[in-house]
Amino acid sequence: MELEINKNLIEQIELLIEDQNDVAILELIGEEHHADIAEILDDLNFDEAIYIIKLLDSEKTSDILMELDEDLREKILRNLSAKEIAEEIEELDSDDAADIIAELPEERQERVISQIEDEEHAADIKELLTYEDNSAGSLMAKELVKVNENWTIPRCVKEMRIQAEEVTRVHSIYVINDQDQLIGRLSLKDLLITPAKGNISKIVRPKVDSVNVNDDVEDVAKVMQKYDLEAIPVVDDKMVLLGRITIDDIVDVIRDEAERDYQMAAGISQDVEADDSIWELTKARLPWLVLGLFGGLGSVFIMESYESIMANPALGKLFFFTPLIAAMAGNVGVQSSAIIVQGLANDVVKGSLFNRLIKEVGLSLINGLVLGILVILFGIITEMGIMFSLTIAISMLCVIIVAALIGTFVPIILDKKGIDPAIATGPFITTSNDIFGIFLFFFIAKLMLGF
Amino acid sequence: MELEINKNLIEQIELLIEDQNDVAILELIGEEHHADIAEILDDLNFDEAIYIIKLLDSEKTSDILMELDEDLREKILRNLSAKEIAEEIEELDSDDAADIIAELPEERQERVISQIEDEEHAADIKELLTYEDNSAGSLMAKELVKVNENWTIPRCVKEMRIQAEEVTRVHSIYVINDQDQLIGRLSLKDLLITPAKGNISKIVRPKVDSVNVNDDVEDVAKVMQKYDLEAIPVVDDKMVLLGRITIDDIVDVIRDEAERDYQMAAGISQDVEADDSIWELTKARLPWLVLGLFGGLGSVFIMESYESIMANPALGKLFFFTPLIAAMAGNVGVQSSAIIVQGLANDVVKGSLFNRLIKEVGLSLINGLVLGILVILFGIITEMGIMFSLTIAISMLCVIIVAALIGTFVPIILDKKGIDPAIATGPFITTSNDIFGIFLFFFIAKLMLGF
Repeated sequence: MELEINKNLIEQIELLIEDQNDVAILELIGEEHHADIAEILDDLNFDEAIYIIKLLDSEKTSDILMELDEDLREKILRNLSAKEIAEEIEELDSDDAADIIAELPEERQERVISQIEDEEHAADIKELLTYEDNSAGSLMAKELVKVNENWTIPRCVKEMRIQAEEVTRVHSIYVINDQDQLIGRLSLKDLLITPAKGNISKIVRPKVDSVNVNDDVEDVAKVMQKYDLEAIPVVDDKMVLLGRITIDDIVDVIRDEAERDYQMAAGISQDVEADDSIWELTKARLPWLVLGLFGGLGSVFIMESYESIMANPALGKLFFFTPLIAAMAGNVGVQSSAIIVQGLANDVVKGSLFNRLIKEVGLSLINGLVLGILVILFGIITEMGIMFSLTIAISMLCVIIVAALIGTFVPIILDKKGIDPAIATGPFITTSNDIFGIFLFFFIAKLMLGF
Repeated sequence: MELEINKNLIEQIELLIEDQNDVAILELIGEEHHADIAEILDDLNFDEAIYIIKLLDSEKTSDILMELDEDLREKILRNLSAKEIAEEIEELDSDDAADIIAELPEERQERVISQIEDEEHAADIKELLTYEDNSAGSLMAKELVKVNENWTIPRCVKEMRIQAEEVTRVHSIYVINDQDQLIGRLSLKDLLITPAKGNISKIVRPKVDSVNVNDDVEDVAKVMQKYDLEAIPVVDDKMVLLGRITIDDIVDVIRDEAERDYQMAAGISQDVEADDSIWELTKARLPWLVLGLFGGLGSVFIMESYESIMANPALGKLFFFTPLIAAMAGNVGVQSSAIIVQGLANDVVKGSLFNRLIKEVGLSLINGLVLGILVILFGIITEMGIMFSLTIAISMLCVIIVAALIGTFVPIILDKKGIDPAIATGPFITTSNDIFGIFLFFFIAKLMLGF
């Protein structure tokens, strides 16, 4: 954290690489945290990054690889032999190792795994690769500390010391029976506090939260957040202990989920970043714009059917208000859908659908009345005529109510059908609300102004 | 986790409360996790919740209070005496205790603190209340395990056992010098693995990340995520160890931040939930709708200045396309701003502003060309006339470019000025882009169609 990563430092490193001054490079960054070195590599060009990777030992580079930008990592891995990758993999925990291997082309995966010397590690990685994306199994690590229920405390401490060497962080010691089934846990603290004698049964905590290997990672995240857990054991249907998930992986899940929902609401369909290629960004953005285009062309048809009133100067003014109506319908729809989507994610959407309906209508009435009064004031100032102003205000009120209901109930219906409600936020809701809004606007205007 | 919280269970508990069958209630939920009991209380009415709170002992209820919905907690605290609140506080870690006290009216705060029997605990809470919102100090807990650099390993283990009884979770043991300054840490694992002899100096890890008590919590979250930390010590300007922040608090910070950004993008200005009152929801939503209304009325003025072309059947059709143009401007603006706001939050917006300009223009050109071709196809099918179709397509292309630039650079400028760029997403960007879009549309149409 002491090292400030800035332009100066990057330039300094680039000069040292040019001079092939390995000693100075190692002195400058060799002792830094792998996350910092990864940040530096992201700022260098590819050849320079490779130079640094080849300079550092594999214990360090394996951790750096995990932190790198995905594109750079892919490029670097393509430049390493299967043997070299296997050496990096050897240093990583099984979950990180499996993540790296999963990024390789399939034919390379086999070759790399066959080069891993530690057979148990290789078997663990192979097992992890079999679990489905977004399942607890895909996120867990095989490394953990476990003891048998029949052991004595001294034996546990001894075994634990051996096992702990392999495990980056020890949160809990899991207790299993002879069938490898999870039956409880020991806390490190208890082990340190308790006098070291007798059977462990007296300090085993029999209540231990666990998740099934097929559970969805978002559900795992919810459980860990709810119970403030730092690690959770993963078991199969027979309660056999398979691995564990730690909170740092869950932090990534939570962040990714939030970012995905946010991007979806903004009409960006794939996980992209500001620094991705134009092509990646276009693929993520264009489909939603095409949807918006079709929506816009749909409202062209609706308005065309009212073309005849254009000749009437009093009625033609209605067309000036279509962007306003569309904006209101869109804004209200996005607000309602965002609140519901967040509520669904956090399980706070309770009570009957009827109560929710009443609430949204009430809320829309208040908003619509305030906005309607403002429109009428605008009408008075600009001398639009009272009937015309009323028409705009009342149709806007109706549009707001309908938009709020669509924004609220489309996500709820999607959620009940098991579809991610987040797709109903953003362009989807604004586009459909635009069309409904403009249709309703002319329909009500026709009734009120009689054309 | 075994207990399913559903309507049945709630009804069952309500009946037991009615019968005042305390034994059965305790049997049913007495042993459950405090997070589960809190969830049950959130589903009961207020009198029922109070009944359960008074039934359980304060060790349990203090944890439950922390998990409750804020509104319910406030109501319950209002129903407890200062003495009763002090008893709950006594059981909580200093950070949670300070959070609860901060929610009380000021005159009650003093009274509650004066009733806390443990003087050290009371002093800790008072100290925590002095730190500013969103500073590391406001998030940290005073409870931690620390040892002096001059102690032997056996003394450390002994002291640690005493201290650890007070600390919910022990991640690291912090090593301080005689001036209370943080100089390193011990890991529990090292302590368990190392033979218990000699001075601790040989197992002290001198490199320890820390944050300053005045650092912003979002920066603390970034550091802890970057270095995958589960706890971080908090120090003052002289490196004196003041407390520690644990990852579970940071998870909440990350989630809240993501939710705030998401709500801001959806035009919701305060932290509201689906179950808040209509009044709260209106306060959060109405201001943005008023902004949208003013924007919409602004475009009315722009269109009014082109009123004369309405009489011309060929040109009047332009008005049918205003919602389409506004929707495109809005959608593109929201997409661009979302990507930039996320990029700024994750520090991936690098490179010069000029490069970003080129990129956004390139991206918009691709999107605009594809959409423009679709519009021309639409024009051919609906026999709009080639010049008219071209006008729509070209002006849409220009609008998309301008909208992307506004969506990209407004957040960047706000960020440079130290203003949260997230306010530039959502209604703010759609409203301003609506106006710019419609202005540009008629301006270009006028040039191309010559009116």
